Formats: sequence, C-alpha cells, structure tokens
Amino acid sequence: MNRSELLASLAACVGERHVLTAPTDIAPYAVDWRRKYVGQAAAVVSPGSTAEVAAVLQLATAHRIPVVTQGGNTGMSGGATPDGTGTQIVLSTRRLNRIRQTDALNDTIEVEAGAVLEAVQVAASEVGRLFPLALAAQGSCTIGGNLATNAGGTAVLRYGNARDLTLGLEVVTPDGRIWNGLRGLRKDNTGYDLKQLYIGSEGTLGVITAAVLKLFPPPAARRTAMLTLPSIDNAVQLLNRVRADLGPALTAFEVISAACVPVLQRHFPEMRWPFETLVPVVALIEMSDHESEQHARDTLSFVLEQALEDEIATDGVIGESVAQSRALWALREHLSEAQAKEGPHIKHDISVPISRVAAFVDAAVKHVQLGFPGARMAWFGHLGDGNLHFNVLAPVGTDALAFCAGQGDVNRLVHDLVHAHSGSISAEHGLGQLRRDENARYKDGVELALMQGLKQALDPLGLMNPGKVLRPLSAG
Amino acid sequence: MNRSELLASLAACVGERHVLTAPTDIAPYAVDWRRKYVGQAAAVVSPGSTAEVAAVLQLATAHRIPVVTQGGNTGMSGGATPDGTGTQIVLSTRRLNRIRQTDALNDTIEVEAGAVLEAVQVAASEVGRLFPLALAAQGSCTIGGNLATNAGGTAVLRYGNARDLTLGLEVVTPDGRIWNGLRGLRKDNTGYDLKQLYIGSEGTLGVITAAVLKLFPPPAARRTAMLTLPSIDNAVQLLNRVRADLGPALTAFEVISAACVPVLQRHFPEMRWPFETLVPVVALIEMSDHESEQHARDTLSFVLEQALEDEIATDGVIGESVAQSRALWALREHLSEAQAKEGPHIKHDISVPISRVAAFVDAAVKHVQLGFPGARMAWFGHLGDGNLHFNVLAPVGTDALAFCAGQGDVNRLVHDLVHAHSGSISAEHGLGQLRRDENARYKDGVELALMQGLKQALDPLGLMNPGKVLRPLSAG
Repeated sequence: MNRSELLASLAACVGERHVLTAPTDIAPYAVDWRRKYVGQAAAVVSPGSTAEVAAVLQLATAHRIPVVTQGGNTGMSGGATPDGTGTQIVLSTRRLNRIRQTDALNDTIEVEAGAVLEAVQVAASEVGRLFPLALAAQGSCTIGGNLATNAGGTAVLRYGNARDLTLGLEVVTPDGRIWNGLRGLRKDNTGYDLKQLYIGSEGTLGVITAAVLKLFPPPAARRTAMLTLPSIDNAVQLLNRVRADLGPALTAFEVISAACVPVLQRHFPEMRWPFETLVPVVALIEMSDHESEQHARDTLSFVLEQALEDEIATDGVIGESVAQSRALWALREHLSEAQAKEGPHIKHDISVPISRVAAFVDAAVKHVQLGFPGARMAWFGHLGDGNLHFNVLAPVGTDALAFCAGQGDVNRLVHDLVHAHSGSISAEHGLGQLRRDENARYKDGVELALMQGLKQALDPLGLMNPGKVLRPLSAG
Repeated sequence: MNRSELLASLAACVGERHVLTAPTDIAPYAVDWRRKYVGQAAAVVSPGSTAEVAAVLQLATAHRIPVVTQGGNTGMSGGATPDGTGTQIVLSTRRLNRIRQTDALNDTIEVEAGAVLEAVQVAASEVGRLFPLALAAQGSCTIGGNLATNAGGTAVLRYGNARDLTLGLEVVTPDGRIWNGLRGLRKDNTGYDLKQLYIGSEGTLGVITAAVLKLFPPPAARRTAMLTLPSIDNAVQLLNRVRADLGPALTAFEVISAACVPVLQRHFPEMRWPFETLVPVVALIEMSDHESEQHARDTLSFVLEQALEDEIATDGVIGESVAQSRALWALREHLSEAQAKEGPHIKHDISVPISRVAAFVDAAVKHVQLGFPGARMAWFGHLGDGNLHFNVLAPVGTDALAFCAGQGDVNRLVHDLVHAHSGSISAEHGLGQLRRDENARYKDGVELALMQGLKQALDPLGLMNPGKVLRPLSAG
C-alpha cells in the first residue's frame, strides 16, 4: 500500500478532513511538549467515534502500519511522539472529547479519551461533585493521556493517581476489536482486571477510547499552610505527624528545596515569597474538610502550632482565604516554569519509600555536588507520595546547554542512587522513549520478560506505539 | 513420572514431612469451605520459602503436573479446591507465613502469602498502624488468598479492596521463575503494572508468595450508628448524604433487609436487636475520626438527627461505647452464620451501580417472589460499595434442600437482573468454579478472549489452577 492509498483508506475511515497530510499540519503532532524529540508521521488521523478508531486499527493491522496514539501532547517522556521514519501514523484522540454521562448518585462520570482534564473537572462540578485529578497541564492534557501514563499530580496522597480513579475502560485492540469494559462498579471480581494493563501502558497495547471515572463529594473547605523546616528529615517527621493528626483530610504534602526559591524569585518577581529567611525545606500542606471553614482553620492552626512548639518547623503561614491559599499553591506550581526560564536543566522524576527519602536526598545532593561542583539541586515535589522532581541546574553563570550535554552521567548517578534506595526512576512521567533504556538497566529481568510476553500477547504485530516502554522485540 | 517418583521429587523440593500423601491427610485440602466441592489430590505440598515454591513449580512444569494453590481454604467459590481426577497437587502456602518487615514511616508491611489476615492486622497495630482489610474469615484466611481473590469486606468504602491495599508483589511463574516486585512505592510508572494481573486471578497465572501492603495511621475514634429506614431507596439517599457530610471519615455503610432479622433472632436469641418494630431496611454506619471520641460522637449524632428530621430514617441508635459499637457490628456479622443455621439457601454476591441498587432490589424481590412464591429474600451487605449478598431462603416450613435443587433457576433470574442493571455477578467472592460458566454467559466476548490470551501468555501449559475462572482451552 503506497502513501496515497493509505491516505485514501484513512479518509474512508474518518472522513477526508480528519486526515492531516501536509507537513506543516503534521509538524505539531510530531514533536513532544519538551521539544526533545522531533519525529515524522505519514499522517495524523482523528477518529470521531470508537467505531472509527476500530476501523483505523483494522486498517493498520491489515497493512502493518505502526500507530502512535496522542492526546493533548503534553507528555514529559516523548511517549506520544512518532519516530523519524515517517512510516508511523499519529492517531489523535482530540475529536473523541464527549462527556458521555455523569451519575452523581453513583459518583461516576463516563468520558471519552480526548476529553481535556479540566473539562472533566468542570463537568463533575456541574453535578456537585469533585474529580480530583489535578496537574499543571490540566488545561490541555486529555483523560486518555492521563490514563495511558497513569498520571499523578497534586492530589494523589488523598485520592490516588489516575489508575485509582478509574472504574472502567473502553479499549480498541490493535486488530480493531472494541472491548466495552465501561463498568461503574466499586467491586467486581469476575476475571482478570484488564483495565489495569492498559492504564500506564503508554499506548503500547491498544487504544483507550473512553473511561468511567470516580467522583467524590466536594469538601466543605480546603485550607493550605506553608511551613519552613530545617531539613528534609524534619519534613518526613512532619508528614508522619500530619498524617496521623489529619488522616484522610490531608490532601497534599508538597516540599520545595532552598535552591528552587531564588530561581522562582528571579523569573516571577511579582510572586510574593512568604518567608524572609532562606531555609533548607519548605512544606506546603493542604487539608480538605467536610465540616466547615472554621473547623478546617482550627485544625490546621493546631497542626502548625504543634509543629512550631516541637521545633519540627521554624515558621509557618496559613492561607486565610481562598485567594491566599491559591497564592501559596501558585508558588509551588510555578517552580517548573521558573526552572524552564532559567535555562536547560536535567530533570528526574523519582520516587523512593518515604522512610528513605531523607537518606536519598542527602546522598544525591552530596554525590552530585562532588561529581558536578556548583550544580544546583533544585528539587521539589510530592513528599506525601515519596515522589520528588530531583532537578539539577547548571552552576550559576555557566553554560547550561554545555552542562546538560553531560546529563547521561547525572542521570546515571541519580538513578543508581534511586535504585539503591529501592525507588523508581519514573514516578509519574512514564517511560516513553526518554527512560526506556535506563529502565531496562534497573528492572528485574523476570519482570522485563513478563512485560515482553504481555506485549507479544496483546500486540503480536508490534504496531502499537513501537519503541516506547519496551525495546521492539526484533531489536532484542 | 509415576506417583512415587512424583512424591520423591516433591520431597526433594520441600522435605518429606511437608508432602502429605495419605488420603486422610489430603482430605481437608480437597474440600472447599462451603463443602460444595469435593476433589482429590495427588499430594499436598507445603513449601517453606519462595525458592521452594519455585522448585515445586519447576518440577510441575517439567512433568506437566497441575497445581492448585491454597491459603486458608475459606473461599466461597471453590477456587482453591482440586478437581476429582487426583492428578492435581495442592500447593499450600501455610508455611509461608512470615511478617518480613514493617516500615511505619513508609506505612508499609511486607508479608508472606500464607500469613493469616489477623496476624497482619496485629503486626500492623504493634507498630502503631492500621491494616484495614477486615472480613469474617480473618482468623483463618491468608493474605495470599485475599490477594488472589481481591478480597473486599467491611472497610472497602474507605480503604478499598485487597487490590487497592497492595503496593508490591513477589510471584513465582508457572515455570518457576521468581519475580521480585516487592516495591513499597506510592508512585511508580516504569512499565506494565504486573501485580494487578495476579491480584484477583485466583491462582490461575502464577503463585503469589509475598506482598508489600499499605498501612494507615489509626483513627482516634470509631463510632457506629444503626438506623431504620422505610425503603432501600431511602438507604441510598442516606448514603449519598452521609458521604457528603462525613467525606472519607465514613468507613462503612452496610444494610440489612427485614427478612434477615427473624432468622438472626431465631439462631442467636442472646443477641439484642435494638429496634422493636420490624422495618424494611436497617443501615449500619461506621465513621472513623482522627480528632477525638467527642468529635466523632457529635458528628455522628448530627448525621442521625438530620436523617430523622428529614424523615429519611425512622429511628436510630448510636453505639455509646466501643462495646456497644461492637455489639451493633456483631448483628451484621452474624447474619451469614444465622442463615447457614437456618438451612441450605441460595447465595448471590452481586454489585450494581449505587444509583441502580434500589431499582435492582425492587425488581429482584418482585421477580423472585413471582417465580418462587414464599421464598425469603434475606439480602444484606455493603451498600456503600453497591455490593449486596442477595441471598434467597426457602419458604418457612418447607424442605430447604429441595428448594435449593432449583438454585440454577434462581441464579439465572437474579443474575439476569444484575446484568440488566449493569452489575457484576461476583462482587467480592471471585469466580472459582462456582461462577465460571455463568460468567462466560454475561461477559463481553472480547473481554473473555483477552483473558484467554493472557492466560495463554502467562501459563502456556495451563498448569495453574486449571478450570478455575476460565474454561480450559482444550475444552473450548
């Protein structure tokens, strides 16, 4: 099948205007969000229904055409970017964006894969419910992408990651069969839990076309506090204590290291940093309360006072209003953008057991400093999940691009330490192409073999997002 | 390999005294807890370590010996009982019962598969933590069995089922490789989430030998209330309201139908039923509070008063002490035993979306009454999860055994209605052999084919608990 036959066949599946073929039209779909990977595609096809997805995949299977599924294209690991051969097609889910139904009494919502996360949050709030998945890209990322990468974000501590928020899936298999697993049940033990395989598989096993997601009654109040701490060890102690005091009312426990602060202040000078002294660690705590604003305030004040009294924390502020709470959150949320404005840097998205976070941070800071004198360890992240974005910035005043040329060595050093601390080298960003080979270095051999066996069973022709997550079988 | 060679080889793997061969020794392992299924086994082998499990499975693979893994043998669906051929061996996990380590700061515990659930609860409490999985069989069921069947129980509403409580697994594959997936991480996106496949697969894909489980800080107080309600529809309304008022502090929402009460009173006359009038539905609500006993009491009193004021509930009591709360729970927990003492009856373990529970119950009661006049619908269960044990008892004074001879027809009627209400015919008991063929009737064909594909990929020789969950491939 030559290219013009392919394009005609794709047009027959989805309609001509939903097949992009011009290089300028294809280009935005062929580069990842971080602009680390630039690929090519034979076409970009946008099905408007599950049946059209099935038709596209039947065609792909019949003619052995590799398919890269793409949602909002906001991934951090190049998982939705086609390779450079120009033989792959991009299957965009953007037209599959309906909110199919909400069921407030069952606390569920059924949405199509291309629905933007924020649109799902809004649809939930319209029926008086909360869809708690929340992350920086929520204005453009899609639910399908969230599920394919098992997205995390800022509310995992209380509500879980994308996997935990999913009750049912609709999936099209590589050969174009439609599996309707759109159940809205809290308990169902009638066989293997297939949805779990597709969630987090980054488009390598099939195409997720719709999902049934969990909703929650919204809390009566949300309150945020920010505390300064002498060390990461104190932060872990504080987390332990706050978990006991607040129980499930604790909805977020984030940390920010000292090196992040001047970078934030340089690039967002209009944002007010609430502390005058630079301290090693700042914790951002959010609680949700089903009782009242007053109860939330009193509870969080108590926690803060106790932490100061016991000298776990050295200072602290409580957001006295929704606006103040948002302002505190905004500081946390702009860290990544501030680092991007600072220049190229080396990112790590790691997790370790919470009991080993302090030892890991101490070891990583020490070893990176030894190996790369002057490098700034501007780490921050979701301490409540044991997940840190352990980012390494070039020494002040040096050539950041040149520094990043050595990122393989920094990755190796940091990830070897993560591995030594029983951690994960990709906590919430997935493997995509960025971490595929590193993962093969750290992963148990039996586990890799089992993964390859599942890939072979579910995508025997290797057409689903080839080269992502796992090396293609032919390449060993 | 003849039987004596087999026994000698098994003895070489685990030591002679850990291979049971006498029919009287084997018998207890060859019958299920409900005594519905009586099988035979060539031997019962009890490995003392993961390496010994691997040795047994290598042997099994080399000589094509089917293996039935068994924990506490408390399953409800015959999933751990060997068939009648006498060719299968039972692999008992009872000796694999170590608590390997607890990590209070990470809120995790690593245990072997044969550890009894109650022992895990105790080990958690010894480090000041809660392991929340709780069910009637907890004194004898094992964690391995809980995971193999994705056990539910009475705290799912707040803490999730066994799947949700698991962070890592150690599994031996059918050919005797050991997969060490014992991670204690809240976030890890480095490939397919293999543990999810083994959880709930009822021993048909491999042998779970150990797990890392989530722990929680225990609440400061737990309070229980019991309310009488005019209808199941009111119960759903009350659940909806209590979820909003209590948020995650709501730890259980159970319901008991009127038909359960006289049966309970007949067989446990010493237990005090707190209401004088027989009402259609009783709800048992438990809340956990991280603040104080007083706060728990005030909150629950408020909920109860509001429900009475708004005429959702007609009467109610609050457990004023731990002893009183336990007494209220004991009523709920003795329903199953009371029904067993009443005589043979027809069990269903179903779930439907919570928004459809009332319609389902009304339809099921009506149709069973029409088809089987006088039959008692003594349903009860976990309304918060949409999960009811919709049990049907013979008409009073009739031959219960004769009535149960028609259970296929009752199953069909009830399960057709479950299916029509988008529900599951096995919410928390698994399929085992009891529901295997019924499941094939209701399950999506694509889903069944995908399940068979995974079985084929992970257990190509079909040696792992053959005939459970799925029909053996050779039998079509």
